[in-house]
Amino acid sequence: MKTERQLRILLTNDDGIYAEGIYTLEKALSRIGEVTVVAPEAEQSAVGHAITMASPLRVKKAYRRGKFFGYAVTGTPADCVKIAIRSLLKRKPGLIVSGINHGPNTGFSVLYSGTVSGATEGAILGFPSIAVSLGSFKNQKFTYAAAVACRVAKAVFRYGLPQGTFLNVNVPDLPPSRIKGLRVTTQGKTPIIESFDKRKDPRSRTYYWLTGEVLDLEGEKKSDIDALKQGYISVTPLHYDLTDTGFIPQLKNWKLF
Amino acid sequence: MKTERQLRILLTNDDGIYAEGIYTLEKALSRIGEVTVVAPEAEQSAVGHAITMASPLRVKKAYRRGKFFGYAVTGTPADCVKIAIRSLLKRKPGLIVSGINHGPNTGFSVLYSGTVSGATEGAILGFPSIAVSLGSFKNQKFTYAAAVACRVAKAVFRYGLPQGTFLNVNVPDLPPSRIKGLRVTTQGKTPIIESFDKRKDPRSRTYYWLTGEVLDLEGEKKSDIDALKQGYISVTPLHYDLTDTGFIPQLKNWKLF
Repeated sequence: MKTERQLRILLTNDDGIYAEGIYTLEKALSRIGEVTVVAPEAEQSAVGHAITMASPLRVKKAYRRGKFFGYAVTGTPADCVKIAIRSLLKRKPGLIVSGINHGPNTGFSVLYSGTVSGATEGAILGFPSIAVSLGSFKNQKFTYAAAVACRVAKAVFRYGLPQGTFLNVNVPDLPPSRIKGLRVTTQGKTPIIESFDKRKDPRSRTYYWLTGEVLDLEGEKKSDIDALKQGYISVTPLHYDLTDTGFIPQLKNWKLF
Repeated sequence: MKTERQLRILLTNDDGIYAEGIYTLEKALSRIGEVTVVAPEAEQSAVGHAITMASPLRVKKAYRRGKFFGYAVTGTPADCVKIAIRSLLKRKPGLIVSGINHGPNTGFSVLYSGTVSGATEGAILGFPSIAVSLGSFKNQKFTYAAAVACRVAKAVFRYGLPQGTFLNVNVPDLPPSRIKGLRVTTQGKTPIIESFDKRKDPRSRTYYWLTGEVLDLEGEKKSDIDALKQGYISVTPLHYDLTDTGFIPQLKNWKLF
């Protein structure tokens, strides 16, 4: 086993390099490893697993509180991970962390999440990867979530992850004393409540806003949604292979050709 | 069993409503059902499963060859499916089809694909859904792929799909006589060849282009990549649940808390 000192961490997010969540997480992770931040210059929420192909990317040095903090990229979290690995980093990281997102990434939100996509890209490129989110849009208290991220990071470093598997961590937005523990969970499948608000602009033309946060009616047991609701940290192992292998035998019986 | 006449189909894509692929597919699907087109106004390639939350969506009627063709949305394929289901369509569709994409969506491309994300969104909203792609960026010969899409659509209508499962269809860009058949496949896991081309703009500032198509070194047997390479149509069942359930028991043994 390598010592923790050797742990090199690539850190990204989707709220942008100037967000509070990545700042708090950088400070915490720096205590257990050597952190390089490569993150979007601007907020990239709900970008899904997008990559920028139709336009070039630019990279700038970003400073926070007067000190060099990391590289700001004019792209998505997946772009950041790609350009970090393929171009910016001299030495490959031992771990890729994405977060801390301001708001939960549970249930179907996982599929829309830029934060999760940072970890997905890490897994595609063959690195152990973690996404970390704070389970509320309200407060900006990331200190405890950052401590949880460090704990998970150390465990990943110790135990390793199989090729293609990465972890999605959600931390309830509660005082640490009220957090009940940690659950290994599944991605929830509760329907999303949403609608479009149809409005008229000043020139009387119609436009639509997607309304309603990605709310969940009720969480299934063992799901990330339910864990958060019950006051537990959720850790869901995700995989980049979307194949529904269980359905293959049935599909082979279809008369298709 | 319902008759084919009753089949209502929502059609979207990511190459945009004026692309050749969706035009050919609309013509073909209209022979087996009642098609409504709701597609992005502009090309949306590699948007992943993005949704537009920070800005409003606009919807315009789109005409092709002087006739009403469908609704053009200033958003992504997932936006199109959401707004169609939540606002535009009076009656729910029996099937959602996304495509025909100009270029393959196999292997890791599946995760970046706007075309696939149209079908993912369909599955999230609870509808049987199919993504269809033509396996080459070169030609624009979609007629055969459209016929394959109809065949798969009819099969989905006949056999049904379990909740959460959707189909990703890739058709080789070959003369029909040279296509060997159809294979039920898995999402390939072959590494992607890519790099960033570092350049200087006229003002001597650095920028980066992602280079190399999403090429694949070699396909594993049974994968979508391999099927296409061997001249077979690939049909991969995908699922929106990314949980790596196989890894849960091991993760539960980690000392995390």
